[in-house]
Amino acid sequence: MNEFELIQKHFAGWDIPGDQVSLGIGDDCALLRVPEGSHLAVSTDTFSEGVHFFKGTSPEALGYKALAVNISDLAAMGADPLGFTMALSIPDSNADFLKDFAAGMRKLASRWRIPLVGGDTVRGPLSVTVTVLGAVSEETALRRDRAKTGDRIFVSGPLGGAAYGVWARYRNIPETRETASLFYRLDYPEPRLDLVPLLRRLECRTALDISDGLLGDLSHILRASRKRAVLRLGNIPHPVFPEGLLETERLKMILAGGDDYELLFTLSSDNAAKYRKLRQENPELPVLYEIGQIEDYSPDVSEIFFEDMPVIPAELTGFSHF
Amino acid sequence: MNEFELIQKHFAGWDIPGDQVSLGIGDDCALLRVPEGSHLAVSTDTFSEGVHFFKGTSPEALGYKALAVNISDLAAMGADPLGFTMALSIPDSNADFLKDFAAGMRKLASRWRIPLVGGDTVRGPLSVTVTVLGAVSEETALRRDRAKTGDRIFVSGPLGGAAYGVWARYRNIPETRETASLFYRLDYPEPRLDLVPLLRRLECRTALDISDGLLGDLSHILRASRKRAVLRLGNIPHPVFPEGLLETERLKMILAGGDDYELLFTLSSDNAAKYRKLRQENPELPVLYEIGQIEDYSPDVSEIFFEDMPVIPAELTGFSHF
Repeated sequence: MNEFELIQKHFAGWDIPGDQVSLGIGDDCALLRVPEGSHLAVSTDTFSEGVHFFKGTSPEALGYKALAVNISDLAAMGADPLGFTMALSIPDSNADFLKDFAAGMRKLASRWRIPLVGGDTVRGPLSVTVTVLGAVSEETALRRDRAKTGDRIFVSGPLGGAAYGVWARYRNIPETRETASLFYRLDYPEPRLDLVPLLRRLECRTALDISDGLLGDLSHILRASRKRAVLRLGNIPHPVFPEGLLETERLKMILAGGDDYELLFTLSSDNAAKYRKLRQENPELPVLYEIGQIEDYSPDVSEIFFEDMPVIPAELTGFSHF
Repeated sequence: MNEFELIQKHFAGWDIPGDQVSLGIGDDCALLRVPEGSHLAVSTDTFSEGVHFFKGTSPEALGYKALAVNISDLAAMGADPLGFTMALSIPDSNADFLKDFAAGMRKLASRWRIPLVGGDTVRGPLSVTVTVLGAVSEETALRRDRAKTGDRIFVSGPLGGAAYGVWARYRNIPETRETASLFYRLDYPEPRLDLVPLLRRLECRTALDISDGLLGDLSHILRASRKRAVLRLGNIPHPVFPEGLLETERLKMILAGGDDYELLFTLSSDNAAKYRKLRQENPELPVLYEIGQIEDYSPDVSEIFFEDMPVIPAELTGFSHF
């Protein structure tokens, strides 16, 4: 049994219905149905040991995260998942590794009903490339170039936890009960596909997932939409960090740390008000955090301005054009 | 400029219209239109130095072939190309390498109008993963499990040239004027997307591309369709090999050599006759080589039988169930 047969064995037991799959793995191509009126959304990410994850990361976390960061791209596009392909490079054929790797991937694939429809396995340094496929209509696609002046800027959850995990692992600072959830954010980020129906209802048109850090990713929206942003630092959600961190380190984690894979998006002020009303009536709706507002572009002022932090620490200015 | 920006620079100048691309590289996902009534065909292949190509293969050949073997999967499925994504791992940022690599890929991408719609570049050992996307209707998809008793078996071109190239490179046998075209077959295989319209016209339902060797790949069809095959060795096309090869080496190249990426397919006897008539009227139609016939499966006789070679050399029996 070769590696891919081994993986298929671990993947084959999955209970993923996948009515959209008309021909699965085993022929020259898999065949998928794309719902009528929908566009195909496609994204590829590679995940390599030593570059994208620390040597020694558990195989389960690796399998989970390689798929998670790709599903996050579907969420950021407002797309419904159709399937994914995977190219796995592993140094040797290790049945235990493959079992745990597949189990990590399976967690997410089952939850979001996204079947594996193709793959390749080669011998080489540990690395995973996932290509994810989804469906979205042209009207509801969440693009970077649709932000409008007056739009409210939101994030979908606390920022900086995963960045703390990276920071601590570089320094060999061990996990404690207090920081376990921050390390967990790094290894098992939650792609926010759960938000897609709510964002459609709120007529959201502009979003991305925060993979490089809030400031850098907000910059992508501002440049694509030719706008600027005014933020309120005090409104940006973040986890409780352990004591003893320098204020600039903390700010860097919140504003420039990636890897949390929360969504950054904008809503018109009417739809922002609609959300507040909806949530009052339905307290079980997800919390969306309003952190600022889109304004007209002007060459004379900074691209991103903080109402409550007029002087930006020098350590942060590399992440955007202040 | 990072590697991917460099590649995009080389790829951006391409004249690939791609009306099917409604949103290209640069957002969380690319968005593609899949024609109504068509299924999405998807396939992934990884191409690694030392495993899939010899160290020292020219960057141009590498870029060409990494895309060629994937386009070949679309051809083998009878699909029209929509686009592809690429994940490239390179040891260092080398502008010359990237320029030549992109030029090799561009050759094919332009010819078949298949735009790059996503990608990722990481630092690591040389390796390319391509995921190719195409469109095909359920009725005209070329599957492995559709061969019928009485179908005629065809191949689309000479077999064994690329296998000679592999054989000679392992032995450091240099290229000569006589063998240049065989080495060329190895480095620059021609994906047979040109045959898709003709195969549709001939109501072909069963095909694959010969990547592992005729016998092994024919086995895939026979098992998926629960059939056996009777072949005529003398009808199997092959290039002129240099003198001095052992007969078993020659046979192994023709019957068990992969890498030529010709198509193996079946036609009903009516459609086989129709092809012969069509070609008589239109001599410019591609040559299709009839090499045998599909028969009922029987547990008592070999899966593949040669009319004109009743005793199979032992070196070949590993490639199929004789």
